[in-house]
Amino acid sequence: MSAAVTISIDAMGGDHAPDMVIDGLRMAHVRLPHVRYMLFGDQARIEPLLKRYPDLDAVCTIHHTTEAVSNDAKPGQVLRTGRRSSMWLAVDAVARGEAAGVVSAGNTGALMAVSKFVLRMLPGIDRPAIAGLFPTIKGETVMLDLGANVDCNANNLVEFAVMGEVFARAVLGLEKPTVGLLNVGSEDLKGNDAVKTAAATLRDSGLPIRFHGFVEGNDICAGTVDVVVTDGFTGNIALKTAEGTVRLYATCLKEGFKNSLLAKIGYLFARHALHKVKVRTDPRRYNGAMFLGLNGIAVKSHGGTDAFGFANAVGTAVDLVAHGYNDRIRREVEHLHAAESQTTRLAAGNL
Amino acid sequence: MSAAVTISIDAMGGDHAPDMVIDGLRMAHVRLPHVRYMLFGDQARIEPLLKRYPDLDAVCTIHHTTEAVSNDAKPGQVLRTGRRSSMWLAVDAVARGEAAGVVSAGNTGALMAVSKFVLRMLPGIDRPAIAGLFPTIKGETVMLDLGANVDCNANNLVEFAVMGEVFARAVLGLEKPTVGLLNVGSEDLKGNDAVKTAAATLRDSGLPIRFHGFVEGNDICAGTVDVVVTDGFTGNIALKTAEGTVRLYATCLKEGFKNSLLAKIGYLFARHALHKVKVRTDPRRYNGAMFLGLNGIAVKSHGGTDAFGFANAVGTAVDLVAHGYNDRIRREVEHLHAAESQTTRLAAGNL
Repeated sequence: MSAAVTISIDAMGGDHAPDMVIDGLRMAHVRLPHVRYMLFGDQARIEPLLKRYPDLDAVCTIHHTTEAVSNDAKPGQVLRTGRRSSMWLAVDAVARGEAAGVVSAGNTGALMAVSKFVLRMLPGIDRPAIAGLFPTIKGETVMLDLGANVDCNANNLVEFAVMGEVFARAVLGLEKPTVGLLNVGSEDLKGNDAVKTAAATLRDSGLPIRFHGFVEGNDICAGTVDVVVTDGFTGNIALKTAEGTVRLYATCLKEGFKNSLLAKIGYLFARHALHKVKVRTDPRRYNGAMFLGLNGIAVKSHGGTDAFGFANAVGTAVDLVAHGYNDRIRREVEHLHAAESQTTRLAAGNL
Repeated sequence: MSAAVTISIDAMGGDHAPDMVIDGLRMAHVRLPHVRYMLFGDQARIEPLLKRYPDLDAVCTIHHTTEAVSNDAKPGQVLRTGRRSSMWLAVDAVARGEAAGVVSAGNTGALMAVSKFVLRMLPGIDRPAIAGLFPTIKGETVMLDLGANVDCNANNLVEFAVMGEVFARAVLGLEKPTVGLLNVGSEDLKGNDAVKTAAATLRDSGLPIRFHGFVEGNDICAGTVDVVVTDGFTGNIALKTAEGTVRLYATCLKEGFKNSLLAKIGYLFARHALHKVKVRTDPRRYNGAMFLGLNGIAVKSHGGTDAFGFANAVGTAVDLVAHGYNDRIRREVEHLHAAESQTTRLAAGNL
């Protein structure tokens, strides 16, 4: 962990960039003093912000560009015309080997398209996935895909299982993480063809994965498994449904505490405990969606996040680099394909 | 509302049946004294429970059968061998016109299969949907499908929109409910083919529906629209993810209040306000998944519910009957198909 790591930063991505980005890097720098940053964006706006924090300034280099990807830009349009944007140049720094990973709070679709185009896929992986961490009753769970692929076949789901399992081992430090496939019921007969075929592969292919079987929506927050695998359509909707539910609960609670004098007094006594609940379910702590399966580390910070959230996204990128995530994935994918070709040979032998 | 309504009850369905069922009917009877019940199940077990409550007993008739559908029975197996079960007989009472609707807390898959087989579909509806109510920041939202169909095409989604819209008008009493299609983003380009085609139909077919467009997972609890339409795979997972998230939040809160003396004192002052939050997010209030699109009213109560939840499911069935839900659906489906054939004629005229 003490070796110097360089992370490239899209300094113009996010609703409150570049101010939020620089504030976030300042918080990250306190926690991770060994990390250096390449900042891509408008020098005239970044430099004065950076000059306020000499300690941070000392580990940053600014790479000037006036172009930035807007929040409503279409991914195809960015691929055609965005090569001088801060986002593209930041991703390209990883492809050129100048940075070990990239962090952007910009347009998700554009960042995924540019990352796929510039970094390419890891050998043997068909599609990238967006992975994120969920708070659970037991701790935390990694879930993927959160929206990179709206249509997924069984093979994609199996690859997501491999990528998620390695993530749980490499970054969360779990020895034998359990993996579950998200479904509408836990019985074998339930679900669509993709999840049924993927479950059969995960169960029978001899992959070194502790496959729990199907899990349901309520198992995500219950922490039933360490890794929840699903397609990007369902995963994105589950993630946002959970966010909306937390907001509903918090709103009801706030209204409840305002509604009577007794409740207001109660709040004064209980506020420290309530603050801890807020911290534990704070979405900013879980900020930083990892783009897995690419030939390079890319982390998407939430577009509307603040400095605290951005600092956590930077921390996630550094974690992925420090734990050699992509090298591990490469090895596991070789295992997967070896297991698959063995299964194919065995099946052929049985004919 | 004062006319006598008869509801048939699967007295043996649910984890705590028949005790929970009878207790639930007793609560329902206080609220809905004009409703009569046909109880299907084991007379030797039901009769002694009923005798304790003479007022309720007076509006009930027991129809004896010793057979019951177990929680783990496969729907196909129940279709083949379950014709003497309490569930089947209760559904059949609706088909024979003896009851206006049926309520069961038994096996969901079996109840859907038996209801489809015995009641048949409403003319013009391709597939039934399971609909439920969600609490939102603004009030409540109806969402469907919650799990009847794991694979849905665009036509199914359009039919769900019609059924949900009529539900919101007939049962929730909304004049012009808004309808949204659940998707991974609100832009027209996002999503899979089914949601994109369904959105185009809802926008352009001239149906008398206030179509809002796409909504995302966080819009469900935000109450952005009155009706959220989705396929049964996504809907089931969103529902259970929301339930799991509420449970996580409530657990964190409980732990928070136990953790220090100050918090315990705070709880004493605030408990009335906290109780109101609990009531507002109590899943039992939203108990009663409506099976829509069938030629008869069928309501599924949660298998693990208590008497309070079961009473609410009975209330839902009575509401659907009282508001002539199925007659309204029949008329709307005629509109839908008239609009479709007009669109087809117009399109043919343009060739």
